[in-house]
Amino acid sequence: MIEHLVSFDIASGPVEVPTGTLLTEAARIAGCNIGQPCGGQGRCGRCTVQIVDGTVRRRSTMRLSQADLDQGYALACQTVVEGDVSVIIPPQEKIERRLTSDRTVAEITVPFGYDYRRSQTIQRVRLTMPSPSMDDQTDDLSRIRTALRQQAGFTNVNLSLPLMRKIGETLREGEWQATAVLDVQEIFGGGGLQEYLIDLLPGHIADDEPLWGAAIDIGTTTVTVWLVDLISGEVKAQVSDYNGQISRGEDVISRIVYASKDHGSDELRRLILETIHELLDLACKRIVGHKVRTTEIVKVTIAANSTMMHLLLGLPASSIRLSPFVTTVNQVPLISARQLGLKINPDGVVDCLPGVASYVGADITAGVYSSGMDHSDQLILFMDVGTNGEIVLGSREWLVTCACSAGPAFEGAGVVNGMRATKGAIEEIWINGATFEPTYRVIGNGRPRGICGSGLISLLAEMFMTGVVDKAGNLNTHLETTRIREGDHGLEYIVAWAPQTEIGSDIVITHVDIDNLLRAKGAIYAGYSILADSVGVPMDWIEQMQIGGSFGKYINVEKAVQIGLLPDMPWEKFQFLGNTSVKGAYYALLDRDARARVDDIAARMTYIELSADNSFYEAFMSALFLPHTDLSRFPTVVAAREERLSTAEQLITTERLNTNGQINSITNYK
Amino acid sequence: MIEHLVSFDIASGPVEVPTGTLLTEAARIAGCNIGQPCGGQGRCGRCTVQIVDGTVRRRSTMRLSQADLDQGYALACQTVVEGDVSVIIPPQEKIERRLTSDRTVAEITVPFGYDYRRSQTIQRVRLTMPSPSMDDQTDDLSRIRTALRQQAGFTNVNLSLPLMRKIGETLREGEWQATAVLDVQEIFGGGGLQEYLIDLLPGHIADDEPLWGAAIDIGTTTVTVWLVDLISGEVKAQVSDYNGQISRGEDVISRIVYASKDHGSDELRRLILETIHELLDLACKRIVGHKVRTTEIVKVTIAANSTMMHLLLGLPASSIRLSPFVTTVNQVPLISARQLGLKINPDGVVDCLPGVASYVGADITAGVYSSGMDHSDQLILFMDVGTNGEIVLGSREWLVTCACSAGPAFEGAGVVNGMRATKGAIEEIWINGATFEPTYRVIGNGRPRGICGSGLISLLAEMFMTGVVDKAGNLNTHLETTRIREGDHGLEYIVAWAPQTEIGSDIVITHVDIDNLLRAKGAIYAGYSILADSVGVPMDWIEQMQIGGSFGKYINVEKAVQIGLLPDMPWEKFQFLGNTSVKGAYYALLDRDARARVDDIAARMTYIELSADNSFYEAFMSALFLPHTDLSRFPTVVAAREERLSTAEQLITTERLNTNGQINSITNYK
Repeated sequence: MIEHLVSFDIASGPVEVPTGTLLTEAARIAGCNIGQPCGGQGRCGRCTVQIVDGTVRRRSTMRLSQADLDQGYALACQTVVEGDVSVIIPPQEKIERRLTSDRTVAEITVPFGYDYRRSQTIQRVRLTMPSPSMDDQTDDLSRIRTALRQQAGFTNVNLSLPLMRKIGETLREGEWQATAVLDVQEIFGGGGLQEYLIDLLPGHIADDEPLWGAAIDIGTTTVTVWLVDLISGEVKAQVSDYNGQISRGEDVISRIVYASKDHGSDELRRLILETIHELLDLACKRIVGHKVRTTEIVKVTIAANSTMMHLLLGLPASSIRLSPFVTTVNQVPLISARQLGLKINPDGVVDCLPGVASYVGADITAGVYSSGMDHSDQLILFMDVGTNGEIVLGSREWLVTCACSAGPAFEGAGVVNGMRATKGAIEEIWINGATFEPTYRVIGNGRPRGICGSGLISLLAEMFMTGVVDKAGNLNTHLETTRIREGDHGLEYIVAWAPQTEIGSDIVITHVDIDNLLRAKGAIYAGYSILADSVGVPMDWIEQMQIGGSFGKYINVEKAVQIGLLPDMPWEKFQFLGNTSVKGAYYALLDRDARARVDDIAARMTYIELSADNSFYEAFMSALFLPHTDLSRFPTVVAAREERLSTAEQLITTERLNTNGQINSITNYK
Repeated sequence: MIEHLVSFDIASGPVEVPTGTLLTEAARIAGCNIGQPCGGQGRCGRCTVQIVDGTVRRRSTMRLSQADLDQGYALACQTVVEGDVSVIIPPQEKIERRLTSDRTVAEITVPFGYDYRRSQTIQRVRLTMPSPSMDDQTDDLSRIRTALRQQAGFTNVNLSLPLMRKIGETLREGEWQATAVLDVQEIFGGGGLQEYLIDLLPGHIADDEPLWGAAIDIGTTTVTVWLVDLISGEVKAQVSDYNGQISRGEDVISRIVYASKDHGSDELRRLILETIHELLDLACKRIVGHKVRTTEIVKVTIAANSTMMHLLLGLPASSIRLSPFVTTVNQVPLISARQLGLKINPDGVVDCLPGVASYVGADITAGVYSSGMDHSDQLILFMDVGTNGEIVLGSREWLVTCACSAGPAFEGAGVVNGMRATKGAIEEIWINGATFEPTYRVIGNGRPRGICGSGLISLLAEMFMTGVVDKAGNLNTHLETTRIREGDHGLEYIVAWAPQTEIGSDIVITHVDIDNLLRAKGAIYAGYSILADSVGVPMDWIEQMQIGGSFGKYINVEKAVQIGLLPDMPWEKFQFLGNTSVKGAYYALLDRDARARVDDIAARMTYIELSADNSFYEAFMSALFLPHTDLSRFPTVVAAREERLSTAEQLITTERLNTNGQINSITNYK
């Protein structure tokens, strides 16, 4: 195999790779980080590099213009080395690490009547043992087992070899007084208890000293960690950050594609573990008055979608992506932190909550638990909208669930000026019905850099309500405004002119962007309407509409209804629950009954595979309109639009009169 | 800290170490192997090195003469670096790797009626699963669990994360046919079964294909491995080799001392694992017709003395050596090969058999099992004589046990010309009662290099029976022979003159050696006599005398009785069982009932601590004679000696006559 030298401007030296090596792989070897939000599929164009010198072959040039190619640009994920090559990696915008936690710290109350001795699987017991003598030569482990049996009633205690190596020293250091920390689980099938010694500490620890656990939600975009004192049950710190895997793909499909490459799975596992470790460190540092080390954490409960769970555990995820869409495992057995490589107490327990299917994961079972719908007398529709929309319908009687792939449009991806909800993102927009001029609010109050998900929903709703677009999402070229123009990618509406932006160019929404948004909202609408149909429940029987996920927190319900993303129902039926996944993980962390109920929820949920359902496609096509083909489903939207358009008509008339000098002020419609 | 350069003649380059570093530690860092049979206590003198240049401080110069010191000799384990130093490591005799297995392959019959389905904890089942479809999106693990439940009745199967990572590929490779290998254990306390998936293989494996397990005995000196087909129960290969830890100490105490040094425990663990890995490799290569890989071994059962077990597991062993002599653990829970670092199937089960006390380990419980004494109607005394003598007395009714530290004299250590039973060792000696000239047999039939344990027993017995030594072991200087002389270490008897030896110097036994041998045999005699006394059993009630351990195989009973090592009882009561430890491990490996019986034996054995018993010291002192202070205990020896001495008297007379030319031939007394 012929080897070639590949040099990257930002690398310390060239690397040697064989003919046919992808530039992304060469960059990885050279230690350069090239972002691949689409997972290396050549779709997103964010891995563009410039070939200064040398021979390469471009497999695909999608998203590159002829001018780009003339200047030597290439997609690193689609370009292979065929000779010595010199490459420039253009400076990339550094991801703003604005902690989501800064906006989302939740007030969490400890479950009513929580008593760790009754509810917690982790138990801490003080032991006092006779010291050995020539008359009592019992071995150390038997001495501990006897004390556990006589002083705490544990009869079946097991422990790991590494822990066994330190018990002797601990007993002697504590002068035959010790504090044992155990995990006590019921054996599946009712075969008694399985007791696992997690740690043995010298001396007697006071009852009110904290005992640390963590609830973790691994989202495709954001990871959240709650540090919990298992004794009091209190959440002592809440932190979150972006999932370190984002640069390797923005949605689950891209990540699965990336994981199937050489070293991809190991790399993604390392990245998510790094994110979790940083968050655990940060959470421990937030505890005032105790110098908490992460190794003091003895139990972790994890909720995540099925793909994130597989990538965390290093399980092959490719079958999730391919028909018939099965996971390796939905109900993960308890594992030790040592097995996972999680840097808490190595004998600490890692409890991965159960998922239901490839696209309805543990985040949803945890979410259903924290919504309480499985115990409710009311008929509830629970939605978690993110890259995927997961939907659960039911009550204490029954639960059905489905997932629909909305695509990442609501997370700002696949949209020309889309971005995540960080500093510089336009998060809400208002359009003047008479002038079609927009005003907007920017996260961080500076100049805008792009539009985030809630901004896009807001923008689309405003464009529709003011007639900038019609029912089909087509831009109205007959309006008297310079904001609508023919751009490089077809018709577009200018949200902010270049001089007002941080990026030095216009921020726009294109016809293609609008189509993407319509498909995203159409998929979700079709999802829950088909789910309701499948069990013969008309939408207006639904008594509560619960929306989980951090995305849900920023949605303006009115706007979301106006574009037909949410159903047209009285606003009091909507409830926004925030991160129901981490909340569910927290309850399951604390309480063995809650944990059993999560298992029960997973077992009870009937999964409906939409891709196997022809009616889904019809429902989806009907939902590709604003708000829907069938306007009778959105009576308040129709009424509101008519009123707004007629008000605008009057405004326009008034403004024309005003232009004639007869009226001096107008009310800016909001 | 000031650093110094230390150069060793046999190392590739100097190493840098701080002031105060031991030469043995510097040598370790430099990659030089300095043998420390006494564990680095400065007792054995085998780590002697020569300081060519530089500054060192000798903490101890025991075993070195002033002449040695003048020439720069130092004990590496007792000498610290105080400046740059140049060191010569004298060439050491390479340990002869004569495989013990060459002399000890045992004929083993599979236990009567062995049926692996009924007796074995390892079960192998063929599974046939429906392939997933859009109508059956069950995850892979649930599919396996359902098949295990429906097709084999297993309801509580657990598995490791690494195995979970490969089940998906295995199922698809085998097109939804697979063969599962499980370990099925009863949960302690009768809580049903615990089923652990060890492996999942693609496709269906035929019933008669072998399934590999291994029984391992870790002796202080020798490690033995039997490779077993768990399906047929047959032992397919038997191999053994020296324990790789020997160069770090010849007895358990030296090893414990070595383990308590920096890195000592890790080093000893690595050494024993290396020995086991080499033996497993070798055993696999001995299987004709199958290319067996060690990773196909799914279960290993280990017997060892308590120190060897602790060192294997990396458990701290120092409390074994110090009063009140307790172990970290006698009953080791099941562990996975992955946890132990044993290179078989990483999810394979490692079952360490239970010990009773610091000096009565799993080798003895396994030995008692294979002797059958726990089920016997007869009163049996079981002994395993090595560096330590472990003794068990009892029957189906009761079992008592004790250990006595014989020291390593019978293994050739602590004796000037002592050596292990390898090529060049004198293993049997006869002394002419008239001329006091010895004849001997040498292992390998070449010139002698030293005397091994059985040779020493034989020599001591012959010296006693011919009057070369008296009852107290004193050499008789009045005999007409040049073989008895005053040597460097006091009186000695010359077994072989320098010209006849391989080592170029005389092979002798000194007065000090004789004392060491008397102490060794005295300790063992005192051990079993006190044990019998403690339960009020006269020695002549003992119906069988069972001797285990490879040492026992080479003992000449007559000679051992003559020196008072074994009791004076009819020879038909003696049984030599060979390596009862590995045999017991083999039975426990095969049969869950046998395994339970080993637990039962460990629980039933009452351990008697001799060091807490004043009568032991008295008994020991009385046993420091040939054969014993109380001659009435050895009537046949007294009679035989008298007869032999009088025969010798006649021979001497005859010879004198012969010298006068009257008789031409004499019968050489043998």
